[in-house]
Amino acid sequence: MTLFRVLCLFVFAICLTSAPAGKAVAQNVLDGRMHALAGTPENPLDVGIGIKIDQITSVDQKAENYGAVVVLRVEWTDPLLAFDAKELGREIRVFNPPALADHAAEVGAVVPAFVIHNQQSNKWIHESAASLRQDGSVVYVEKSSLTLQAPHFDFRKYPFDTQEFHFDVASIFPTEYVSYYPLEEFSGLGDLLGEEEWILDNARVEASKVIGISGRESDQVALIFEGNRHLTYYVIRVFLPMLVLITVGWALFFLDEYRRRIEIAGGNLLVFVAFNWAISADLPKLGYLTFLDFVLQCMFLMTGALIVFNVALRKLKVAGREEGARKLDNYAIKWIYPLGYAAIVGYAIFAYLLVP
Amino acid sequence: MTLFRVLCLFVFAICLTSAPAGKAVAQNVLDGRMHALAGTPENPLDVGIGIKIDQITSVDQKAENYGAVVVLRVEWTDPLLAFDAKELGREIRVFNPPALADHAAEVGAVVPAFVIHNQQSNKWIHESAASLRQDGSVVYVEKSSLTLQAPHFDFRKYPFDTQEFHFDVASIFPTEYVSYYPLEEFSGLGDLLGEEEWILDNARVEASKVIGISGRESDQVALIFEGNRHLTYYVIRVFLPMLVLITVGWALFFLDEYRRRIEIAGGNLLVFVAFNWAISADLPKLGYLTFLDFVLQCMFLMTGALIVFNVALRKLKVAGREEGARKLDNYAIKWIYPLGYAAIVGYAIFAYLLVP
Amino acid sequence: MTLFRVLCLFVFAICLTSAPAGKAVAQNVLDGRMHALAGTPENPLDVGIGIKIDQITSVDQKAENYGAVVVLRVEWTDPLLAFDAKELGREIRVFNPPALADHAAEVGAVVPAFVIHNQQSNKWIHESAASLRQDGSVVYVEKSSLTLQAPHFDFRKYPFDTQEFHFDVASIFPTEYVSYYPLEEFSGLGDLLGEEEWILDNARVEASKVIGISGRESDQVALIFEGNRHLTYYVIRVFLPMLVLITVGWALFFLDEYRRRIEIAGGNLLVFVAFNWAISADLPKLGYLTFLDFVLQCMFLMTGALIVFNVALRKLKVAGREEGARKLDNYAIKWIYPLGYAAIVGYAIFAYLLVP
Amino acid sequence: MTLFRVLCLFVFAICLTSAPAGKAVAQNVLDGRMHALAGTPENPLDVGIGIKIDQITSVDQKAENYGAVVVLRVEWTDPLLAFDAKELGREIRVFNPPALADHAAEVGAVVPAFVIHNQQSNKWIHESAASLRQDGSVVYVEKSSLTLQAPHFDFRKYPFDTQEFHFDVASIFPTEYVSYYPLEEFSGLGDLLGEEEWILDNARVEASKVIGISGRESDQVALIFEGNRHLTYYVIRVFLPMLVLITVGWALFFLDEYRRRIEIAGGNLLVFVAFNWAISADLPKLGYLTFLDFVLQCMFLMTGALIVFNVALRKLKVAGREEGARKLDNYAIKWIYPLGYAAIVGYAIFAYLLVP
Amino acid sequence: MTLFRVLCLFVFAICLTSAPAGKAVAQNVLDGRMHALAGTPENPLDVGIGIKIDQITSVDQKAENYGAVVVLRVEWTDPLLAFDAKELGREIRVFNPPALADHAAEVGAVVPAFVIHNQQSNKWIHESAASLRQDGSVVYVEKSSLTLQAPHFDFRKYPFDTQEFHFDVASIFPTEYVSYYPLEEFSGLGDLLGEEEWILDNARVEASKVIGISGRESDQVALIFEGNRHLTYYVIRVFLPMLVLITVGWALFFLDEYRRRIEIAGGNLLVFVAFNWAISADLPKLGYLTFLDFVLQCMFLMTGALIVFNVALRKLKVAGREEGARKLDNYAIKWIYPLGYAAIVGYAIFAYLLVP
Repeated sequence: MTLFRVLCLFVFAICLTSAPAGKAVAQNVLDGRMHALAGTPENPLDVGIGIKIDQITSVDQKAENYGAVVVLRVEWTDPLLAFDAKELGREIRVFNPPALADHAAEVGAVVPAFVIHNQQSNKWIHESAASLRQDGSVVYVEKSSLTLQAPHFDFRKYPFDTQEFHFDVASIFPTEYVSYYPLEEFSGLGDLLGEEEWILDNARVEASKVIGISGRESDQVALIFEGNRHLTYYVIRVFLPMLVLITVGWALFFLDEYRRRIEIAGGNLLVFVAFNWAISADLPKLGYLTFLDFVLQCMFLMTGALIVFNVALRKLKVAGREEGARKLDNYAIKWIYPLGYAAIVGYAIFAYLLVP
Repeated sequence: MTLFRVLCLFVFAICLTSAPAGKAVAQNVLDGRMHALAGTPENPLDVGIGIKIDQITSVDQKAENYGAVVVLRVEWTDPLLAFDAKELGREIRVFNPPALADHAAEVGAVVPAFVIHNQQSNKWIHESAASLRQDGSVVYVEKSSLTLQAPHFDFRKYPFDTQEFHFDVASIFPTEYVSYYPLEEFSGLGDLLGEEEWILDNARVEASKVIGISGRESDQVALIFEGNRHLTYYVIRVFLPMLVLITVGWALFFLDEYRRRIEIAGGNLLVFVAFNWAISADLPKLGYLTFLDFVLQCMFLMTGALIVFNVALRKLKVAGREEGARKLDNYAIKWIYPLGYAAIVGYAIFAYLLVP
Repeated sequence: MTLFRVLCLFVFAICLTSAPAGKAVAQNVLDGRMHALAGTPENPLDVGIGIKIDQITSVDQKAENYGAVVVLRVEWTDPLLAFDAKELGREIRVFNPPALADHAAEVGAVVPAFVIHNQQSNKWIHESAASLRQDGSVVYVEKSSLTLQAPHFDFRKYPFDTQEFHFDVASIFPTEYVSYYPLEEFSGLGDLLGEEEWILDNARVEASKVIGISGRESDQVALIFEGNRHLTYYVIRVFLPMLVLITVGWALFFLDEYRRRIEIAGGNLLVFVAFNWAISADLPKLGYLTFLDFVLQCMFLMTGALIVFNVALRKLKVAGREEGARKLDNYAIKWIYPLGYAAIVGYAIFAYLLVP
Repeated sequence: MTLFRVLCLFVFAICLTSAPAGKAVAQNVLDGRMHALAGTPENPLDVGIGIKIDQITSVDQKAENYGAVVVLRVEWTDPLLAFDAKELGREIRVFNPPALADHAAEVGAVVPAFVIHNQQSNKWIHESAASLRQDGSVVYVEKSSLTLQAPHFDFRKYPFDTQEFHFDVASIFPTEYVSYYPLEEFSGLGDLLGEEEWILDNARVEASKVIGISGRESDQVALIFEGNRHLTYYVIRVFLPMLVLITVGWALFFLDEYRRRIEIAGGNLLVFVAFNWAISADLPKLGYLTFLDFVLQCMFLMTGALIVFNVALRKLKVAGREEGARKLDNYAIKWIYPLGYAAIVGYAIFAYLLVP
Repeated sequence: MTLFRVLCLFVFAICLTSAPAGKAVAQNVLDGRMHALAGTPENPLDVGIGIKIDQITSVDQKAENYGAVVVLRVEWTDPLLAFDAKELGREIRVFNPPALADHAAEVGAVVPAFVIHNQQSNKWIHESAASLRQDGSVVYVEKSSLTLQAPHFDFRKYPFDTQEFHFDVASIFPTEYVSYYPLEEFSGLGDLLGEEEWILDNARVEASKVIGISGRESDQVALIFEGNRHLTYYVIRVFLPMLVLITVGWALFFLDEYRRRIEIAGGNLLVFVAFNWAISADLPKLGYLTFLDFVLQCMFLMTGALIVFNVALRKLKVAGREEGARKLDNYAIKWIYPLGYAAIVGYAIFAYLLVP
C-alpha cells in the first residue's frame, strides 16, 4: 500500500513540477519569516513566478486600488534539498509551507522569499501547498485574496479611459542572488473574474528590476492588464439626461419670453451643479479636469452666459429696442445655443480623446 | 469508566460516519497547510463532500457576491489510518483537525485538502471536528462564515431576474488522485436562512471538473441554488409612484394650457432623472440595459419629446393656428400619451421577460 | 506561602463552581479544535450553560442581525478529570482553556464542545478561563464579542413591532451523549446594554433540540429576549411631519382655487415619494407591506386621486358647470379629505396592529 | 559585557518598577489564557492599575462607543516570583508576557488577569512587555487599540450636552483574592488625542466593585473623563441658517400678501423637515426629544399653524372682512411671529439646559 | 555547494548591513513580545531607524488619520550576538525575526523593541527579515500596512491648507539605555504613493525624545512630511459654481423687480445652505471656521440681508416713494452687491491666508 502511495506521490510531483527540473521554486514565508538565500553573484538562483488572477473582487477608483483572488506559483531547484528516494521510500514529498521552511533550515538550504510590491491590505491565504522532488526541485502554490494599489490610474479621458492594473511580485533578495523569470503558462486572467464595470484584457507578464525592501536592486515579475469601462452606464445616467435636458431647454427658447427662459436656464444651472457633484463622488479629488468635467464645466459656464445674455435682451426690450433684441435673439437661438454646446463637446473630444 | 467512554465514542463515531465505510473523508487544512495525497491514477481516493448552507448573511449584488454560514462535511477512508481497536482500547478516535493532519503525517498517510473555488474573503471557522474509525474511515465537519463570489449574476430582467448562486468545493489534487462525489443527504439550504430580499430555492449538488490551483484538472462538488426577488419592494417604491405620477401628468394635460403642461412634464423629467440615479445605486455599473433601465429611459425620452411637442403646439397657437394645435393636441392626449407609455412597457415585457 | 495559595485557589474554585458538584462544564474549543466526548447513551453528560449578554453593540435590522458582548459559562463534572488534592498539594487547578483541553486529552477525558448556532461573524474572545476541582467538576467562563443572526425579525407592524432575539448555544455532540440544561442564575441581559433604539426585555432561557453540525439531533440552550422600539423617533420624524403637511394641505383647499390645489397636492405627492424612499432605507427589501408602508402607499394613492378629482372639477368649471363643481368640492373638502386619511390610518391600525 | 547588561537591566527595572516594591503587577492574558491566583481572603493580592489614553480614534455617538489607543500598566509583587539575583547573574528579568505566564506557572505562581469591562471590539495589541525584579515585583505595560462602549451618553441637552466616557478595567478574580488600586501617575489623557469634535477633560480614576465574569463581586479601576462639543459646527450649520431663514420669512410677511406668505411658509416647512432628517442622521433613534429636536419640532408646528392662520386671514379678506384680517395680521406679524419663536427657544433653554 | 552558499550569504549580509558595523539594529517584536535590553546609562545602545513610506493608501481628514505601506529598517550591533564564522561555516546568518529573538534570549542578549507612537490600527506585516553578521551587527527590515494618527491637521486655511503628517517610531526603552539615530538613506517617501488628492513633499527625518510606554523619556525617530491639496477639485466644484450663481444673481437684479429678486435671492439662500452642508461632510466637526466656511457664512448672511433690503425697497415703493427706492436700489445693485462679495473674499484672504 505504501508503495502505491509513493508511486502516486511521484506522479503527482511530476504533474506539479511540470517546469524543467533545472529551475527552482521560491516559498512564500507564511507568517512573516524570512530565511537564508541560495544563490550567489556568479550563479544567481533562478526562480519562476506564475501569477494567475482568478477573481477581481472590486475596483475602487477613488482609493485607486483593486481587490483580487490570485493563485501564485513559484518554482525553483536547490540541490541542497535533494534527497535519496530509495532511502526515504518515495520520490516526492508534499509539505505544508512552514514545514518546508523548517526542513530547508535543517539541511542548511534556504527559500527565496518574495513580497507583493503593491499590496495594500493584509493577504488572506485560502490554501497553500509545496512539493519537493528528489532532485531538489520545488513547486509552491498559494491561493489568496488581497487588495492591491493601482497607482497608474489616469482619469483624464474619463469615462473613455483605459486603465492599467499591476500585480507586482518582488524578490526580497537582491538581483545578484535571486533572478526571477515569468511562468507564462501559469499566468494571466481567469475566465470568470466577476467584474461587471470593467472590460479587462491584454494581460501580460513582465520581468523588471526594482529597489527591494533590502534597499538594493531586486528582481520583480509583474502581471499587467488593462481595463476599459462599459459605457452603457455613462450613456444612460449622464449623457442621455444631459442631451434631453439641453434639447428641451433649446426648444423652450422658441417660446420667445425672456423671463421664462431665465427661469429654465436657472433650473438647468442647478441641474448642472447636481450632476457635477454626483459625478465627483465616483472619482478621487483630482488635480486635473477629466473629459466629463471639462464638458460639464463648459456647459455650466455657457448656461450662465445664456442667462446674462437673456437679461441683456430683456433690458433692451424694456428700453424699447425690442427689434434689436429679437434679431440678436434669433441669431443666438438658432446658432449659438446648439453650436456652442456642439463646439464644447467637439473640442473636448479633440483635446481629450484624440490628442494623445 | 474508560470502557463506557470507549463505547460512547464508538457509537458517536458510527453516527458521524453514517456514510459507507468504503468511502473516505478529506480534511481541510486549517491554517494553509497541505499534506501528501492518498490516491493513485489507477485507484483515485473517493471523497464525499456535503455542503449545507445554514445562513445567507448578505447578498451584495453590486459587488456580485454573497455571504454564507456553511457546514462542510468531508468523508473518506484511508486504510493507512486504520488502527487496532483492542490495542488502543477504543474503536473511534476524535481529533481536532490539525492533530489528525499530524497523525496522518506520522503514519505516512495524507489528507485530501480542498479549496473553496469562489471564496472571496477570509474564512472564519466557528468550529471544526474530525473522527476516525478503526477501519480508517474519517468524517470531517466544519462550520464557518465567508463571502463567496457570485459571477453568474445577470441583471437583464431586473427586477424580475432569477439569479444563480454557487458554492464550489474544489480538490487541491488532480482528478487522477482524488475524485469527489456529493453527499446529497448533508447538502442543501437550511430552514432559517435569514434572507428577506430573495426567495432562495432549487438547491442541488453537482460534480464537475475544473482546472485546480495545481494547474491540472481537479474534481469539484458545487452546491447550486437559485434566487428570485420579492417584488413588493419594487412595486411600492418604483412602479406605483411612476404609475401615479404618469397618470396625474396625463390628467393635467386635460387642463388645456401648453405652458403649464411644459412645466409639469419638465418636473417629471427631473423625477425620472432622480429615479434613474436612485435605481442605479443598487446595481453595478452594467454594460447593458436592464428591464427597468429600458422602461425608465424610454419614458424619459418620451417625456422629453412631449415637451418639444407642446412647445410646437404653443408655437402653432401663437402663430394663430389654434384650431390645428387643438386637433393635434386632442389626438396626442387621448392616444399618444397613454398608448405610448403602454407600448414602452409592453415592448419591454416582450423583449426582456418573454424572449429567452 | 504555597499553602496560602492552595487555600485561596480552593476558595476561588468554590466560588467559581457554585453549581452542584454533580454537574459538568463544557470547554469551548478556542481555535477550532474538537475533542472526544464523555457521555454515553445510557448516561449522557450533563452540561450547564449560562448565557449573559453584557452589551448590545448594534441592531442591524436591514441585515437582520445584532452584535453582542456575552459572558458564556459552561459547567460539567467528569470523574476522569478528578485528581488527588493531597498529592498535588492543592484542591483546585486553574487552566487556560487550551491547557485544559490538552490535560483532558492526556488523561483520556474529553471536553464537550459547543457551537453558537446563529453566529454570523468571527467570535473575538476578550478573555476566557477554566477551573477544575479535585472531584472533576469544571467551570469554564468566556467573554467575547460577535454578530448573531436574528432571522425571526418580522416588520409587519413596523414601527410598532416587537422583535425576538435569540442566542443559541448548540452542542457539537448528539443528544444521547451530551445533554444541556440552562444555568438560570448566570443567564439574562445586563443592566447597561448601551442600546438606545430598542427597549429590550423579557429575557428567558430555553432548552431545545436541533440538528447539529454532526447531522444528528443535538441539545441546545437559547437565551431569547424581545425588543420594542422607542416611538419618539418615528413620531417626530415621520408621523408629525406627515400630519402637519396633510393638515396644511387640507387648510389650503379652503382657498377654493383648483389650480393652486393641484400644485400643492403635486408637491405633497413628491414629499410622499421622498418619505417612501427614506423609510425604505431603514429596512430590508421586504416581500410584504409594513404598517407604515401601507399608510404611506394609501395616502400617496389618495393624494393622486385628489389631483385627478381637482382636474375634473376644474374641467367642470371651465365647461360652465361651476355650481356643480362647487357642490362636489365642498363635499370633498369637508368630508372626503379628512375622513379618507383617517379611514386609511384606522384601517391600518385595525388590520396590522389589532388583528394578530 | 554581561555585567554591564545586568546593571543596565537593573536600572531599567528600577525605572519600570517605580511603584513601591510591596505592590504587585497583573499580567494580561494575551491570547485568552487565565492562570491561577495569588491572593487569599485574609490577604488579597494588591494590584496597581494605570490607564493612560493616548489617542481617541473616533467617537461614534450613534453606536454609543468610542475608539482609543491606550497604555495599560499593571503592577504587583508576588514573593513566589522572587529569584536569587546572584545565582542568575542579574537582578532583573525582562519577559514577553506569555513567557512570564509560563514562568509563573512553573514556579507555582499566578498572574492576576483582567478584562476591560466595556470593551466592544477585538483588542489589537501594538506592543507589550513585562519586567520582574528579584523581590518578585512585576511591571506589565501594554499599548493597544480597541473600541469601547459608552453607555452613559445622554443627548437630552444636545448639542450643549456633556458626556461621560469610561474605560473600565475589571479583575477576573473576586475581590477577596485580588484588590485593585489606581496608579494615578500613570493614568489620564494624553496631550495629543487627535479628537476635533469634542473638548475632553476632567479625567479621573475611580476604584469600584462590579460583578465580574466569574459571577462574583470583583474589583474594578475606571478612567472616567468628560466631553463637551465644539459649538461652532452647530452654530454655522444649524442655528445661523435657521435664524436667517426665519428672519427672512418674517421680513417677507411685511409684504402683506397672504398667498405669497403661504408659499414662503410652506417652503420653510419643507426646510424644517430636511433639517429634522439631517440632524437625526447624527444621533441614534432616541426615545426622547433633545434640545435641538424640541426647538425644531416646535418651530415646525408653529410654521404649520402660521400657514393655517394665513389661510384663515385670506378667507376673511375674500369674505369682505379685510379690515379685521389686517388688524389680526398686524398683531400676528409684529408680535406673534418673532415672540413665538423666541418663546420656543427660551422655553427650550429653560427646560433643557437650566433645569438639571 | 555549502561553501558557495556561505559566500553568498556573506555578500548578502554585507549588502544588508551597509551601515557601519559599530551600529546596532533593533528587532521589532512581532507578536507583542519584548525582550531584555542591551545598553547601559554610560553606554546606551545606538540604534539606526529608517522609515520609507511606499504607499499612502488613504488620507481621512475627518478621522484625522492616514493609511500607509511602510518599509521600516532597524540596525544595531550587539557583541553578545557575535559568532565564530569558522566554527559555524558561514559569516552571516539570516533569521526570521522571532527566531532571532529566541536566539538573542539564549545567548543572553536582547533586542531593542520599538512601538509606532501614532499607530491607530492593527499593523499587518507583509514581510519581515533579519540578518546577523559575525561581528554581531543586525539589520532588520519589515514591510507593513497600518493606519496612523495625524493629529497635527489644521483646517483653518482649508482648502488652501498645508498639513503635516508624522510617522513616529519610539523606543520602548528609556533614553539612557537605547538611543536612536535616523538612517537618512533609507528614509523618505516613495515615487509612486498612489495618492491623488494631496501633493506630498518636504519629507525629513527628525530625532526627538518623548515619554514612552515605560513612563520615562525615550528616544523617537519621526518621518515628517507635508501635503498640499490639488485645488482643481475645489475650483470646479465650489468656487466656479458659486461665482456663476452670484454673477447670474447680480445680472438678474438689473431686471428691476423687487418680487423676483426676493425669489432669486431666496433660492440662492437655499443653495448656500446646501453648499454649507456638502462641504461640512468632508471635514470633522471643527471648533473654528475654515476659510471656506467664513466665505460661505458671510455670503449667506449678506444674501439674507439683500432679501430684507429688497423687502424694504418694495415697502417704500408700495408706500409711494418709488423714486427713493430706485435711487437706493441703483446704489445697492451697482456697488454693494459686487463690492460686498468682493470684500468678503478679500477679507477672508487677508485674515486666513496672508496673516500667519
